Amino acid sequence: MALAIAAGERVRGTTSPNPPVGCVILDASGELVGTGGTRPPGQAHAEVVALAEAGDRARGGTAVVTLEPCAHQGRTPPCADALLRAGVARVVHAVADPNPRAAGGADALRAAGVVVESGLGALEVERGPLRAWLHHARTGRPHVTWKYASSLDGRIAAADGTSRWISSPESRAEVHELRTKVDAIMVGRGTVLADDPRLTARGTSAGRQPLRVVVGRGDLPGDAHVLDDEAETVHLRTHDPDVVLAELGRRGVVDVLLEGGPTLAGAFARADRLDRVLAYLAPKFLGAGPSALRDAGVSTVTGAVGLVVEDVRMCGPDVRVSAVKSAR
Amino acid sequence: MALAIAAGERVRGTTSPNPPVGCVILDASGELVGTGGTRPPGQAHAEVVALAEAGDRARGGTAVVTLEPCAHQGRTPPCADALLRAGVARVVHAVADPNPRAAGGADALRAAGVVVESGLGALEVERGPLRAWLHHARTGRPHVTWKYASSLDGRIAAADGTSRWISSPESRAEVHELRTKVDAIMVGRGTVLADDPRLTARGTSAGRQPLRVVVGRGDLPGDAHVLDDEAETVHLRTHDPDVVLAELGRRGVVDVLLEGGPTLAGAFARADRLDRVLAYLAPKFLGAGPSALRDAGVSTVTGAVGLVVEDVRMCGPDVRVSAVKSAR
Repeated sequence: MALAIAAGERVRGTTSPNPPVGCVILDASGELVGTGGTRPPGQAHAEVVALAEAGDRARGGTAVVTLEPCAHQGRTPPCADALLRAGVARVVHAVADPNPRAAGGADALRAAGVVVESGLGALEVERGPLRAWLHHARTGRPHVTWKYASSLDGRIAAADGTSRWISSPESRAEVHELRTKVDAIMVGRGTVLADDPRLTARGTSAGRQPLRVVVGRGDLPGDAHVLDDEAETVHLRTHDPDVVLAELGRRGVVDVLLEGGPTLAGAFARADRLDRVLAYLAPKFLGAGPSALRDAGVSTVTGAVGLVVEDVRMCGPDVRVSAVKSAR
Repeated sequence: MALAIAAGERVRGTTSPNPPVGCVILDASGELVGTGGTRPPGQAHAEVVALAEAGDRARGGTAVVTLEPCAHQGRTPPCADALLRAGVARVVHAVADPNPRAAGGADALRAAGVVVESGLGALEVERGPLRAWLHHARTGRPHVTWKYASSLDGRIAAADGTSRWISSPESRAEVHELRTKVDAIMVGRGTVLADDPRLTARGTSAGRQPLRVVVGRGDLPGDAHVLDDEAETVHLRTHDPDVVLAELGRRGVVDVLLEGGPTLAGAFARADRLDRVLAYLAPKFLGAGPSALRDAGVSTVTGAVGLVVEDVRMCGPDVRVSAVKSAR
């Protein structure tokens, strides 16, 4: 399953609105004979890619896959059928497909005599490559990760407005890597005016760039970096997070990285649309300057936006905290 | 050495201005025959306590001690002499004594034919029971740990001023435990006016209470909790951190816990007198309300107060970050 998860992770950011599934095929003796990740929309799913590599050796073998194989005819034929045709004897998947249209794969396989097991590595998959897609399948909304970098006292810039760089090169490199794995990067118009960010993934081998999204009613400067040709950009003239998410969903966006600023993050916090927070906390103190979040609709301490820390680790000299709405 | 460190940790908070040293004695066959921690000022040092327990079995044995045995006659006779009289053949200490008056113990022991080794467990001792005392011995100033509890966005209270409780019961219990191990707890007068804290160690077995220190020029309300009989309190009518530290040093204080608020912490940050920061970050967002630090004298991002994270871990649901001025 670790290999299947890695195969899914490798294609993350290239499959939406389809899930970035990973699959490995073991032959009847348990030897690895095929590995696959879901191809871009309209192309082969992970199981089909892995089966193609395995060829005849899949017969009597095991398919290990991060998501329950689909049972429906979409743009590609059902994966359950492909597994049956290949003669796979056993299927192990991490998580069940919450999508009623695609679910039923496990039942179809069992009905055809295949041994089906589920749950292995489920937590790792739910927090890993399929997190956003599962959220979207369950709620109908794109998954929003709010990422910010601040000092330990929560400031994203100093009193004079300077913010380069609060976080370390290691943290910034990790964010560029993360950008290659999401469908869209979103900022408020205020951030464009203040920082003129490029919002592209740089310093990585991936050529693909996520959609750039600017939220805010007013115009953008014609020479803003986000309007250059390095990636596609959409400007949404609204302040309503649900309008933003509906429009992004319509464009096939499943995984959104909200990169600020404090006002836009506050609007998403008020609307209960921050699904995950990824905080890079530099071991610095500023004592003045804007805080990471503004106007979150909280007036008293018992009304705080409450999350659950799922992971804390160092990223270079910085503390990286990943927190989610609820424990999984 | 782990046992010696634990013995030192057990007496932390009861020995100042002397160091909370721990010592274990092994007999000639390597069996543990004595354990001791430094007694309150004027009473026996750790080596003497451990030797008393070991009795004759110390002869030909090893003394493992967190600090180089002292060579000077203070209120008690030199420990190096006691080790020689007991016939100890080998002394292993973690850190050398930086105090020129007391140092020389290792040389005196070697001159008398004792094998002396140093450095074992040094990092653990320097970050553990002897951190504050070593700082004081090196700089002449009490060691200041600034402890605060905030939301992840750095707020110590909500917009309406409520702050109970931002951090978890686990974090608050840990702070009460920490209070029993310091010599003094310090707050600004503003915190007394706003929160009327007791500043006592509660919910622990230790009966001892640290000195309570209130810093600020104005008067305190006569009915403030800090003026009750549960512990001694001193009110220092100054805003100058160095005046505060000099006065506390005069009173034999070596280890100070600064518990806020943002203005007092800012004054200590400006004066470069925050030796360590202990942050309890609750996985919550407030989006408004006062931040943990104010007026730290930082105007631009490159001038930030920079620290080094030495430890990050969970404390219940909260993230606990310990950061120090420089790597040790």
